[in-house]
Amino acid sequence: MTVSSESPRVVVRSIPDDGRVRAVVAAITPQVDGGRFPIKRTVGEPVVVEADVFADGHDALAVVLAHRPPGAPDWSERPMHPLGNDRWRGEFVPVELGRHEYAVVAWVDRFMTWRQDFEKRVAAGQDVSVDLRVGAGLIVEAAARASDPDAGELRRFATRLEGSAAASDRAELALGTDLPELMATHPDRRFASRGEPELAVIVEPERARFSTWYELFPRSASPDPARHGTLRDVIDRLGYVGRLGFDVLYLPPIHPIGRTFRKGPNNIELAAPGDPGVPWAIGGTEGGHTAIHQELGTIDDFRELVAAADRHGIQVALDLAFQASPDHPFVEEHRDWFRSRPDGTIQYAENPPKKYQDIYPFDFESDDWAGLWAALLEVVRFWIGNGVRIFRVDNPHTKPFRFWDWLIAEVRRDDPDVLFLAEAFTRPKVMYRLAKGGFSQSYTYFTWRTTKDELMSYFTELTRTDVREFFRPNVWPNTPDILHEVLQHGGRPAFQSRFILAATLAASYGIYGPAFELGEHVPREPGSEEYLDSEKYHQRTWDLDHPDSLAPLIGRLNRIRREHPALQSNDGLTFHATDDDQVLAYSKTSRDRSDTILAVVSLDPVNVRTATVELDLEALGIEPGGAFEAVDLLGDKVNLWHGARNRIRLDPSALPGTVLQLRPGRRSEREFEYYL
Amino acid sequence: MTVSSESPRVVVRSIPDDGRVRAVVAAITPQVDGGRFPIKRTVGEPVVVEADVFADGHDALAVVLAHRPPGAPDWSERPMHPLGNDRWRGEFVPVELGRHEYAVVAWVDRFMTWRQDFEKRVAAGQDVSVDLRVGAGLIVEAAARASDPDAGELRRFATRLEGSAAASDRAELALGTDLPELMATHPDRRFASRGEPELAVIVEPERARFSTWYELFPRSASPDPARHGTLRDVIDRLGYVGRLGFDVLYLPPIHPIGRTFRKGPNNIELAAPGDPGVPWAIGGTEGGHTAIHQELGTIDDFRELVAAADRHGIQVALDLAFQASPDHPFVEEHRDWFRSRPDGTIQYAENPPKKYQDIYPFDFESDDWAGLWAALLEVVRFWIGNGVRIFRVDNPHTKPFRFWDWLIAEVRRDDPDVLFLAEAFTRPKVMYRLAKGGFSQSYTYFTWRTTKDELMSYFTELTRTDVREFFRPNVWPNTPDILHEVLQHGGRPAFQSRFILAATLAASYGIYGPAFELGEHVPREPGSEEYLDSEKYHQRTWDLDHPDSLAPLIGRLNRIRREHPALQSNDGLTFHATDDDQVLAYSKTSRDRSDTILAVVSLDPVNVRTATVELDLEALGIEPGGAFEAVDLLGDKVNLWHGARNRIRLDPSALPGTVLQLRPGRRSEREFEYYL
Repeated sequence: MTVSSESPRVVVRSIPDDGRVRAVVAAITPQVDGGRFPIKRTVGEPVVVEADVFADGHDALAVVLAHRPPGAPDWSERPMHPLGNDRWRGEFVPVELGRHEYAVVAWVDRFMTWRQDFEKRVAAGQDVSVDLRVGAGLIVEAAARASDPDAGELRRFATRLEGSAAASDRAELALGTDLPELMATHPDRRFASRGEPELAVIVEPERARFSTWYELFPRSASPDPARHGTLRDVIDRLGYVGRLGFDVLYLPPIHPIGRTFRKGPNNIELAAPGDPGVPWAIGGTEGGHTAIHQELGTIDDFRELVAAADRHGIQVALDLAFQASPDHPFVEEHRDWFRSRPDGTIQYAENPPKKYQDIYPFDFESDDWAGLWAALLEVVRFWIGNGVRIFRVDNPHTKPFRFWDWLIAEVRRDDPDVLFLAEAFTRPKVMYRLAKGGFSQSYTYFTWRTTKDELMSYFTELTRTDVREFFRPNVWPNTPDILHEVLQHGGRPAFQSRFILAATLAASYGIYGPAFELGEHVPREPGSEEYLDSEKYHQRTWDLDHPDSLAPLIGRLNRIRREHPALQSNDGLTFHATDDDQVLAYSKTSRDRSDTILAVVSLDPVNVRTATVELDLEALGIEPGGAFEAVDLLGDKVNLWHGARNRIRLDPSALPGTVLQLRPGRRSEREFEYYL
Repeated sequence: MTVSSESPRVVVRSIPDDGRVRAVVAAITPQVDGGRFPIKRTVGEPVVVEADVFADGHDALAVVLAHRPPGAPDWSERPMHPLGNDRWRGEFVPVELGRHEYAVVAWVDRFMTWRQDFEKRVAAGQDVSVDLRVGAGLIVEAAARASDPDAGELRRFATRLEGSAAASDRAELALGTDLPELMATHPDRRFASRGEPELAVIVEPERARFSTWYELFPRSASPDPARHGTLRDVIDRLGYVGRLGFDVLYLPPIHPIGRTFRKGPNNIELAAPGDPGVPWAIGGTEGGHTAIHQELGTIDDFRELVAAADRHGIQVALDLAFQASPDHPFVEEHRDWFRSRPDGTIQYAENPPKKYQDIYPFDFESDDWAGLWAALLEVVRFWIGNGVRIFRVDNPHTKPFRFWDWLIAEVRRDDPDVLFLAEAFTRPKVMYRLAKGGFSQSYTYFTWRTTKDELMSYFTELTRTDVREFFRPNVWPNTPDILHEVLQHGGRPAFQSRFILAATLAASYGIYGPAFELGEHVPREPGSEEYLDSEKYHQRTWDLDHPDSLAPLIGRLNRIRREHPALQSNDGLTFHATDDDQVLAYSKTSRDRSDTILAVVSLDPVNVRTATVELDLEALGIEPGGAFEAVDLLGDKVNLWHGARNRIRLDPSALPGTVLQLRPGRRSEREFEYYL
């Protein structure tokens, strides 16, 4: 019996309209949260895409990586290649800033399926005369999709395959390379499958990946202790910052500082007259987030600073601290942007029982939240209009994620070269969410990761997991808020060690200076991470020429960073075993593998450490038996090393770390002996 | 200066309409491919859901797990609880068959935020009079969302909080438990966030999770070698199958067998007159997939078989082999469902250079693919109409995934108790994709996983990774297509060992009998996995009463499976270390932890093995110091074990495996010594 004659016909519901789409595209990498957020790259960094692609049965597949730059109407395609186990890989290199899209597209390739079967039939000596006609039919179909001259050529192929020549000659024609190439140009993609969801990559300037930050308080830039520093003083400081090798100069807020509940030195409850106050208590009668503190100078001074910095290869980064002092103009003009209390006062910042009466947070649950968002975007646009291309965002984790998602996307649409650094020292998932939402770089836990295990596991998480696709670490050994006890107690070797770690573990790092290079290390009180006489509440003067300054080391290592592509990305980071739990060893290798840097750093600021480093030669691409040079870039010595195990001596009274360039097989061993 | 006065107003684009939604819901588990496919459970099995949930700042969150059964208009909700690190967990227990939905919903809880801050203020001895008014305001808002009596009670709370009683008394009221409970009943969910995408769980009968399969060829069920077996012979065999403890009886195709190019015994090219042919070459002039092979009986016989099996607690599983012999009625009626060749013939099955001329595959790229789909669904519905609730699907990986997705969803919508077993022995991603698309159970690589490492790594993948959410393994030591060399050469101990592994590693397993229990082990030729004189081409007669039959062992272990919930799920599988690479040890523990089974199985069919098992006591929930019983369920001996390390002797001449129930602390040690 058959269905049609014997079983009652039931209405078939919901037959899809794409029942002949047979290829599956799944598990595409990279992607973030199932495509909810874009991945990140910088200009020229390849996007290597993999996907599971397969179909039912054993038919041949065609798989391409489709991509298009921002605003482009059409997609470009690159072939993808099988890696085995139904995994495919392809790549493209974005060269424009902004949001690029990419997708994996696959279809069953009937011609290549026919051809692979045909080849087996021929090899088995079967009669292939009918199969030649099947192939010719597929070619005629392709000709109908093509236009001349391809169409004509395809038709000629078909005619010859069906012709009267010897079957073996026709088989040879079918198995040649010309035909498949021509056929691949005119594929039958009616039933192509496109991976879901559509994926995107935000492409940013190189500085998003590789940057070297210096933070200073303009009010302390005056060479004269009696005078408040100015933006013009900062201009004078640019030569110093440039000689040290920094390419981002980050300034804490430069806006008017509130007077109501102003904090005094060392954060005492109330300021005395003349105390300068906290730059993050933004806003006075003179203005708010788009005004400049009168003692610092004018908007023209600021524009000159930006221009002068540019001549030094330095970009000025401004602080976006979205909160107000009680004297901020918004408090009068937009009282509904703050939370009112039943007694008619405005809710100041609190972390009960602590009170921060000098700061009013914005109320993002205000009925006029959209007006608040728009005003804050205007602040950013104002500074972009005045030449700023980098913003360090203060405490972004205390404002809604959707606000940042939106603000950064709005800015990026017009100005895709603008970068945002998230200063969120909070729970890991919150920090990662901010990064997913668009921040170009993020502060990290590095400041508190001081043991070997902590550093290895944290940097493995940051550079070897999916985190690398959306979170770009910017690591700081100190900030105006964090003087870690390692620096309080470890002396000069601790500063050196933490500096070398920051500058070589991460492609982006920063220091808060001149406190850092001058070894400022006294806390406000024992157990505190606050600086004594912190510049947050004080104007300070610094002796940049102090003989103990770390400036020479900093300048040299920053030059090494510029010269070595290996240090300009986090992708090539590999940890190597050492036999000393106070000695950390790791290498970085450039994408093209032409540049390899090995850093070995002691975490012990007191004792000489002599450790054996067991190099992962395979990861380094070094032959197990061969010799290779290890060039001491901080000391100019050249060592010849053999094999994986090498001893390193680190003396904290000299320098507790070494940065070596490994040059496998560059010089023959014999030559080298002579050289030594 | 302020934004409004000094910067040109730029039109702000695309402000979202939900800017006050602050909670983030992400990384929900379980989910398959970002929610593209449902997870699977059986009735009564809890769905434990976790998610990352957090918001900006430090406000309190309310998080619920929403779920609804198939067709229900409304969602039920269960609270979720924080696990730390912004991870939350909740669960629900589905009790209806079909597709349930679930979602995680979260919002900032302003009242609980207020309350947690309030508590700190009170503890710090601060003046809280204004804070009490803030709290009262939130309560009045809740009252507006409530109706009486709650509304009235809330208003009374508010009045008392704002009242003239001592602040300490009012604070006590605010910090009591009654108020938060009432407030939680009337939350402000205007800005709630709902995790995306919506997720689903397919809930199936318990047999989807826990089933014991027996495959037999009806044509060999005749006690008389001279007579073709019938469905009525199968009815007579039900007592035997039931005594062995099986609850699914799977029959290879029972339809008319094609005559054109029919295969002969041992798969020789052409059958002699009288050769019965291959049951998978479906269709003759008598009918196709909805007809019954005349020598087997009638549709009435089949209905009687289903009913009789039901009385034995057995469900009959039919084979869905969607292909046709050249004599199938579809070939005449729906020639467009097959692929035509230029010479006018129909394309038979091939794996070049091999040809299977007795079988025509359906062409799922046919222009009338939708008609083909509909007809095949009708086949399934026909057999459902005749009492079938389980289908074993032959080679599903040679038909489009979308076809199965659709067919199974269609069937399940009307008959959510119908199960499908995928017989796809192919690449892993293809097998997993079929399972994701809806198959209730899947054949596995178990048949070829014979070493300790292979078994451990494969079952770890199946039971300890996300695979468990969509892929239910059904493991077979043999099938009519696969006589593994371990069984060819290992004798009775190999059959015992492979049987114990199958029946205790997996909640669902099957054997192809009576070949299995009677130790059938001769291949068609050396190196082949085909049986000599395979029933695929032969009618056979079996001596079920043979003294060497494994039936007693099978019956006993299947009874143990029914008595021990630990063996009815794969969730509680843990491997334990042994000092012998031929001895595998693993335990299974029931969800409520009341039942623990330890299996120790030797893979060596020749030598006695004495191995030390190092139990993972923590996984078993056994105190390190204590004694516990190990009851030998296949041998009735009771051992008293102390601590993790225990020696086990396995003698292949007796039984190369042992199945022990572990009963921690059930009897005091002293008592036990006496008992011994």
